[in-house]
Amino acid sequence: MARKKDDTGRYAYEGLDRLLHEKARLGILTSLLASREGLRFNELKERCALTDGNLSRHLQVLHEAGLIEIWKGFENRRPQTLCRLSGAGRTRFLAYLDALEQVLRDAARAGAEPRPATVPQGWVPA
Amino acid sequence: MARKKDDTGRYAYEGLDRLLHEKARLGILTSLLASREGLRFNELKERCALTDGNLSRHLQVLHEAGLIEIWKGFENRRPQTLCRLSGAGRTRFLAYLDALEQVLRDAARAGAEPRPATVPQGWVPA
Repeated sequence: MARKKDDTGRYAYEGLDRLLHEKARLGILTSLLASREGLRFNELKERCALTDGNLSRHLQVLHEAGLIEIWKGFENRRPQTLCRLSGAGRTRFLAYLDALEQVLRDAARAGAEPRPATVPQGWVPA
Repeated sequence: MARKKDDTGRYAYEGLDRLLHEKARLGILTSLLASREGLRFNELKERCALTDGNLSRHLQVLHEAGLIEIWKGFENRRPQTLCRLSGAGRTRFLAYLDALEQVLRDAARAGAEPRPATVPQGWVPA
C-alpha cells in the first residue's frame, strides 16, 4: 500500500469531458459517429430511447457547444430535422473516447482477482 | 439513412449506471479496483486529484450504496480511513465496465472515415 509518487492524479481522468460524458449525450454522439450522413430527430430519439424533450435539450447543449450541426428541411412536405457531428465535434468526441479507453485499460490492468478479505488488525468498519 | 428497426434503444446504454458513471466516482472506483487491499483517504485524494470535501462526498454516496467499505484505524497513533471495494461494488463496477466497453465497440465500428460534407439539397442549418 506504499504511496507511489507517480500515481498522483493518475485517476483524475481530465480527458473525460463532462459535456460529452453525460450518459444520454454519450449515446447521441455514438449514434451520430456511426451515421456519418446524419440522423433525423426521430431516428435519434428511437436509437437513444429518449423523450422529445430530453433529446431536444441535449441537442441544444451539443449544438451550442459546436459539437453537432442541425439542419432543417422537408421530406414529403413534412418538416424534418437532421443532426450530425461537426468536424470539431468529431475531433473532440474521438479525444473523449481515448480517455474512456484509458479507464478501461486501467481497470483491465487491475486484474480480475477478488480482493483479499483482510484489513489491518484492529481496524473497524465506519 | 433508412431506419433499421433493430436499432431501437441501441444507444440508450442502460448499463451505464449513473451512480458509477459520474466522472470523479469513476476515478475512485478504478483506483480501488487497482488496489485490492484498499487505499487510505489521502492516497485516494491524491490519485484522483480531488479535494477533501469532494472525495468525502463521493465516498459517502458510494458507501451508502454499498459499493465500498470504509474502515477506521490508527497508524503511528494517527487516525486513518481505509476504503476498498465491497464484493457487491466490485460486481457492479465490472458490469458497468462491460457497458462502457460496448460504447467503445460501437464507436470503433463506426470507423474513422470523416463524414461527407453534403446534406440533402435545399436543407438549411438551424
